[in-house]
Amino acid sequence: MPKLSKKGIKLPTSPIRKLVRYSDQAKLKGIDVLHLNIGQPDIEAPEEAIAAVKNASLKLLPYGPSQGELSYRKKLSNYYEKNNIIVNPDDILITTGASEALTFALNAICDAEDEIIIPEPFYANYNGFASAASVRVIPVVSEFNSRFQLPALKNINNKITGKTKAILLCNPSNPTGYVYSRDEITTLCELAIKHNIFLIVDEVYREFIHGNNKHYSVLQYTKACEHTVMIDSVSKRYSLCGARVGNIVSKNKELITNILKFAHLRLSPPTYALMASEAALDAPTSYLNGVIAEYQKRRDILIKSLEKIPGVEVSHPMGAFYCIVRLPVNNAEDFSKFLLTSFQHKKRTIMLAPATGFYSTPGAGQNEVRIAFVIDCEKLVQASIILEKGLEQYKNIYSEAKA
Amino acid sequence: MPKLSKKGIKLPTSPIRKLVRYSDQAKLKGIDVLHLNIGQPDIEAPEEAIAAVKNASLKLLPYGPSQGELSYRKKLSNYYEKNNIIVNPDDILITTGASEALTFALNAICDAEDEIIIPEPFYANYNGFASAASVRVIPVVSEFNSRFQLPALKNINNKITGKTKAILLCNPSNPTGYVYSRDEITTLCELAIKHNIFLIVDEVYREFIHGNNKHYSVLQYTKACEHTVMIDSVSKRYSLCGARVGNIVSKNKELITNILKFAHLRLSPPTYALMASEAALDAPTSYLNGVIAEYQKRRDILIKSLEKIPGVEVSHPMGAFYCIVRLPVNNAEDFSKFLLTSFQHKKRTIMLAPATGFYSTPGAGQNEVRIAFVIDCEKLVQASIILEKGLEQYKNIYSEAKA
Repeated sequence: MPKLSKKGIKLPTSPIRKLVRYSDQAKLKGIDVLHLNIGQPDIEAPEEAIAAVKNASLKLLPYGPSQGELSYRKKLSNYYEKNNIIVNPDDILITTGASEALTFALNAICDAEDEIIIPEPFYANYNGFASAASVRVIPVVSEFNSRFQLPALKNINNKITGKTKAILLCNPSNPTGYVYSRDEITTLCELAIKHNIFLIVDEVYREFIHGNNKHYSVLQYTKACEHTVMIDSVSKRYSLCGARVGNIVSKNKELITNILKFAHLRLSPPTYALMASEAALDAPTSYLNGVIAEYQKRRDILIKSLEKIPGVEVSHPMGAFYCIVRLPVNNAEDFSKFLLTSFQHKKRTIMLAPATGFYSTPGAGQNEVRIAFVIDCEKLVQASIILEKGLEQYKNIYSEAKA
Repeated sequence: MPKLSKKGIKLPTSPIRKLVRYSDQAKLKGIDVLHLNIGQPDIEAPEEAIAAVKNASLKLLPYGPSQGELSYRKKLSNYYEKNNIIVNPDDILITTGASEALTFALNAICDAEDEIIIPEPFYANYNGFASAASVRVIPVVSEFNSRFQLPALKNINNKITGKTKAILLCNPSNPTGYVYSRDEITTLCELAIKHNIFLIVDEVYREFIHGNNKHYSVLQYTKACEHTVMIDSVSKRYSLCGARVGNIVSKNKELITNILKFAHLRLSPPTYALMASEAALDAPTSYLNGVIAEYQKRRDILIKSLEKIPGVEVSHPMGAFYCIVRLPVNNAEDFSKFLLTSFQHKKRTIMLAPATGFYSTPGAGQNEVRIAFVIDCEKLVQASIILEKGLEQYKNIYSEAKA
């Protein structure tokens, strides 16, 4: 057997998809599985997006420009302007999902063995993108008890070495739902300038801000424009996850020029998906307002239902559609597996994402899970009941085993 | 200005897209540019593919399975069986284009500084995929005068070191049109077994075989099944370049399991494109037969027209839709640029792909270009006339400059 790469063998399994075979088995047994594990929106996409593809009159699918059509980049720059982000179409490069945008950014900035600093817990695939590019992730712990706000500056500063090429952030955060303040973003921008490194901010959940919180984009701090990169995607905003259309934005021309070389390699993003994504920008403002209101309603109901469960603590999310939940168990992964393999409540169970996969520090987050609220309010209430019943039964089995 | 990665800065520009700004300028001057530079089929896609997307009734675009839908992988395995390739759906992983398939294969097999051996000239982006993965390309020269057949075994053997992880081949070859014989493939398979390395074969042009030549897939040599990987795509076969759907096939379970981890990172291939690709397999055999006949006709006319031009030599392609052409100039890139910037014949010119970008050895292929025959016969004849006129004028200017 020929040898595989060390980096491939070491590549961590996604915590979001790790337990899929157990949920498949549960479904085969006739159990209905409520998916709280994956950020897969259930809300309809804008009808403009769907209609654009239906009305397309293509006879074949040609390659498009590697950086994406100018018409789409122009419309995106208008959309950003409405969000107080001033960029030109030339500052934007269209990618095959935010996944590719992050991969391009890492590859254009880092060589093998370089380092990037990420506050943890963080979107698990950041680990994967970094491993694939042979880049080392240096985590800085943010705390459950302070809602996962930005770690103290000195803690970040201490991690910066000659190998550090960038700080990576998700704002609003997946998995914590934390929305970084203007002050926090400004502080990081100044840090990036001081150390002459990049600050990459994944803003794919920009629209989803709950209550009176405000989103401040990294690109709004124009003083740092040579040092900042923004990652975006249509997946969550318009329920177009399967489109695989994202984009990267930076005022750093040299960076965009370099990323374009990586973009040339994969030729172009997918045609139909681009049509849907461009048309989605024509949706009336009522569309996104409706979506935002729905997520906020779900968030409020979920928090209320979870906090009724003895021993369960919820980190209240300020944005996105995730929260980190502390469970009264020692090993949340074992419990999540139990829910799929050995439990049901009225022929139903829930699938959770164990939080350890969102941490890079070994042992961190062992009693935590990430819950995505992308199912409707009624199902979220049912899911909370299932969680409560599951915890009771798990506790009983566990104490019996100990006895 | 923060530093960019060394690998990004060194990443070569695609020879296929290198001269785009000159062709854009020519078009702005009202000159019609015949594109011989890019392998972008002009033939209509199967109507089944287009109809599948038109008739889709999606309300939103969800993520799909990272390895691709089972239904599609089943249909692909039937398609392969008709081509004497016996594989199961589990041996197949669907990717976002052959580009991603190659990137996944390289990342799952090679760590930074590992080596892959490729007969040159080769598809220019192989260089880029390797650079992006920090993998070193070790070229082995194949010769214009022997139609670019497999280099002598000892020349390949000499290049194998402790760092060698794979040999990479394109069959039929882009850019040469060479179709490797059963003997050549068998020899390479045995070499892979002997040195316990992988043999990766890009077979995206499998269907396009001219005259009495026969295609022998690397997967047909089942003795080497643990050592072989096949790359495929719908782009050329069904004129679905913009779909961005490819796949990777291997009987090596450990490899496929590892590649799936990389696939998880980018979540799933694009939804609509998958629908089109799966439906394309329902096209009647008359569809592909028609496409193959059309390319063969173009090939014959192109060769005939080119060989009339004094000083021009054509390496007769046995497959795919490219040929390498030797021109009576010292620097084919300079000549290609001249055609776009300083020449026209009846308001028309041609765009060529300078061949140096398909070589890894510095200085190789300087008087060669790659020509793609993906425009109709009439235009190919016109293109040949333009080439002849262009060569005459270029020669005159060149001799004047010397005088």
